Amino acid sequence: MTVGSGFELEKITTLLEGLEETIIFKLIDRAQFRHNSVVYVPGRSGFAGAAQQSLFSLRLRNQEEMDSRFGRFCVAEERPFCTRLPKPKRTVTLPPTGLFVENINAVNLGEKILEAYLGLVPKICRKGDDGHYGSSVEHDVYALQALARRIHYGSLYVAESKFLHDRQRYTKLILAKDAKGLISLLTRPSVEDMIVERIRGKVDFPQARVNPTSRHVIDPAVVHKFYRDSVIPLTKRGEVLYLLNRTLDQV
Amino acid sequence: MTVGSGFELEKITTLLEGLEETIIFKLIDRAQFRHNSVVYVPGRSGFAGAAQQSLFSLRLRNQEEMDSRFGRFCVAEERPFCTRLPKPKRTVTLPPTGLFVENINAVNLGEKILEAYLGLVPKICRKGDDGHYGSSVEHDVYALQALARRIHYGSLYVAESKFLHDRQRYTKLILAKDAKGLISLLTRPSVEDMIVERIRGKVDFPQARVNPTSRHVIDPAVVHKFYRDSVIPLTKRGEVLYLLNRTLDQV
Repeated sequence: MTVGSGFELEKITTLLEGLEETIIFKLIDRAQFRHNSVVYVPGRSGFAGAAQQSLFSLRLRNQEEMDSRFGRFCVAEERPFCTRLPKPKRTVTLPPTGLFVENINAVNLGEKILEAYLGLVPKICRKGDDGHYGSSVEHDVYALQALARRIHYGSLYVAESKFLHDRQRYTKLILAKDAKGLISLLTRPSVEDMIVERIRGKVDFPQARVNPTSRHVIDPAVVHKFYRDSVIPLTKRGEVLYLLNRTLDQV
Repeated sequence: MTVGSGFELEKITTLLEGLEETIIFKLIDRAQFRHNSVVYVPGRSGFAGAAQQSLFSLRLRNQEEMDSRFGRFCVAEERPFCTRLPKPKRTVTLPPTGLFVENINAVNLGEKILEAYLGLVPKICRKGDDGHYGSSVEHDVYALQALARRIHYGSLYVAESKFLHDRQRYTKLILAKDAKGLISLLTRPSVEDMIVERIRGKVDFPQARVNPTSRHVIDPAVVHKFYRDSVIPLTKRGEVLYLLNRTLDQV
């Protein structure tokens, strides 16, 4: 059993760890604006003729259309939230992923990530409305993209790495379409505990020198809970999706 | 001498202080990618037909075109880097700024901010090329926008506040078009020292729990120097621009 050079689990988890600060920074930045709940209400965007959309959904689509033209979604772990996006205008040359999946979009947790994130926003932001609608949705999109990158990267690369390290047992479960068995095989409670504990400290530290009259401080326990109840379970759900869609003949 | 309710200097400097973390987070996030100098080279964007542009300049323009449609530049302190941007598609209702300037774009330090920022990038990023061109320019744009907001907010609101607190002396210097005299009157070395010292600690802390194998750590001294040699002087330059363009008949 040989393991592809890009699939040392340690290398992958180190990359995931590095994304934690990015996610935390973006959540803290979003929390500098109030909840501004009107930005999530369809038809209240202020855009003429956008009766079905909220300012948030318009921003997300516009950002992803631009990103798509720049080639963002050519990258395996960059899965979009929107569908029907324009083709890249740029030639993107990437090294082979080493992943074995015919349709990378089979592993797209966008809808669930969005739902979880929108539930988090009122827990990190102060209540009410400060009029900074544009900034709020701008930072929403950045935070969502950072979360999606982390969750999809984990879904794809952690799953492939685990598969390569225990090909026989995974193959059996994949052939039996046994999602429950797969979840159980890939779950490592001690690793999960370690990650969510690390998160807590990482939220605390960047805020340690903050002047609370100039910055809204977010509660590390909220982000800790979000990682435990959303980021980790969604990543595992993505791992199962990847494995169930993994092509077994190309090993 | 009455001072407008939005112009208590303390309130303004508190807001500026709150932007420091945002700037620092965005610089640290950019530094997770290598310098990737090719993204700044005209004609090397990978976009068909873009012989005159770099990937960076294309990204900046595309971002600002989207932002302009969303109404970003209706906000006084959001001054764009690009010209000939599309009109907003959204109705943006803002409270009066309390500023007295006919053409807000007379206070646009974009070109100088860009120059200073591009000089900073190789000092915070590791040398070389990691292929993450899209992410690099994406984070360049976010960092630039955060810097521009801080510098323009300071230029406009700090200047107006100082003017209101010492109307006579400022009016005399404005009428004499005495830029040197204005710089001297608005400079407070002890405040500047306090800000740049605070920055040093703010760069250190968010990186305190970082695993250096998963995150590139940036040197607080570099950001400290950047604040001292670029952010502060550019803000003061903007204050002078604002004052020289301030309409004196509407006081």
